Amino acid sequence: MNLSLHQTHINTVSWLLAEWAHAIDDDRVERIAELMREDGSYTVSSRFNVDRGLPLAIIDAHSAAQLRDRIRSMRVANIYQPQHYRRAVSAIQVIGQTETGLLQVRSSFAVFRTLVTTGDSLFFAGGRCDDLVDLEADEPRFARRHMIFDSRAVETLMIIPI
Amino acid sequence: MNLSLHQTHINTVSWLLAEWAHAIDDDRVERIAELMREDGSYTVSSRFNVDRGLPLAIIDAHSAAQLRDRIRSMRVANIYQPQHYRRAVSAIQVIGQTETGLLQVRSSFAVFRTLVTTGDSLFFAGGRCDDLVDLEADEPRFARRHMIFDSRAVETLMIIPI
Amino acid sequence: MNLSLHQTHINTVSWLLAEWAHAIDDDRVERIAELMREDGSYTVSSRFNVDRGLPLAIIDAHSAAQLRDRIRSMRVANIYQPQHYRRAVSAIQVIGQTETGLLQVRSSFAVFRTLVTTGDSLFFAGGRCDDLVDLEADEPRFARRHMIFDSRAVETLMIIPI
Repeated sequence: MNLSLHQTHINTVSWLLAEWAHAIDDDRVERIAELMREDGSYTVSSRFNVDRGLPLAIIDAHSAAQLRDRIRSMRVANIYQPQHYRRAVSAIQVIGQTETGLLQVRSSFAVFRTLVTTGDSLFFAGGRCDDLVDLEADEPRFARRHMIFDSRAVETLMIIPI
Repeated sequence: MNLSLHQTHINTVSWLLAEWAHAIDDDRVERIAELMREDGSYTVSSRFNVDRGLPLAIIDAHSAAQLRDRIRSMRVANIYQPQHYRRAVSAIQVIGQTETGLLQVRSSFAVFRTLVTTGDSLFFAGGRCDDLVDLEADEPRFARRHMIFDSRAVETLMIIPI
Repeated sequence: MNLSLHQTHINTVSWLLAEWAHAIDDDRVERIAELMREDGSYTVSSRFNVDRGLPLAIIDAHSAAQLRDRIRSMRVANIYQPQHYRRAVSAIQVIGQTETGLLQVRSSFAVFRTLVTTGDSLFFAGGRCDDLVDLEADEPRFARRHMIFDSRAVETLMIIPI
């Protein structure tokens, strides 16, 4: 419990999480690579695997460059049904700080997916984020973004980063 | 990116968005007309139309008086199945300020609808809000509220303002 | 309307609501009893009953000890399908203060439930919270937590506290 650390940084951190959310949901996915440090990581894995210490992840980018590659592949190579995400980000907490000054941030997400052609909308995935946030630059950035979704059923369906 | 503007005003703006959400979800819909400037606007349109620059909207009130009319019509004239909304409002950001001092505010919403008779609950609509907020009066108010939902399937189903 | 009270305390209150949410969703349910005063109350009831002044509730713990009992019973006695919750907490407002200094706090919740074996995820319950928060101790705590869900269909399905 470090309530004053939370109080000091929550608005900055919430801004960063919102920036990520809007970038993806508004189909400006390229923007998220700017929200990571060049040497940052972005991992999406299932609660099932994380709870068992299994390393398998459905997205595992070890640098902003890898993430840019993945986004480019989504834009030019993948064939998939046109769809939008919309997310609810909440329960954001600054829970600690590393020796090097990175903020440890916890949050919950719920993502809804709308298929463009039919208009069908469904709850797609929920889970938590365990992130490290770097405040050194003008804009806050992720040193690590780790999204852990609750349902294994998501794994075969994810095209767009969440 | 104007992080300090966001940090200064986020709590005031979040209060206004929450006030709107609770008013509708608690069936005190009349309250939302008080949260608009008399000369304010409230528009609900689909992402499909907004992306194509099409002006069609399912709600388009150009003053608080028009909004009061619409709410009164919902109360006395419309026949519809008893239902409640419940919304998640998140990813709130103050992203700029107009020359006249209005705050440009962006947020995401997800609305769930519960039918009173059956108890069935479903994800009803998600989308983003592009709002202008006026801080001049005692209470913050919307100079413009623009809600843009992701799915075209919503259009024929909306009775209660969102 | 007491905007300055909201602005002063919103970050502390949001922390508490987030702490509760993560405790349950991460399967550390025992933690929520620490977030209540020993003489606090935790009630979960339907909007249908609350609107009619009916006292029936599906959870009604009049002390942290009663809540601990209920959680223990869930852990050792109840047989139920393995499942996770994930919630979106939003529209948080500090709307007043009691004579004894407790903060009156209002918020909305949406809970999604994932069944572990099948991976099926659904919107499970939405509603509002009417809480009283005590700031006297090191950590903010609930003097009262009252969760009011929108759909009566939830009543027969709730095992894990929400």
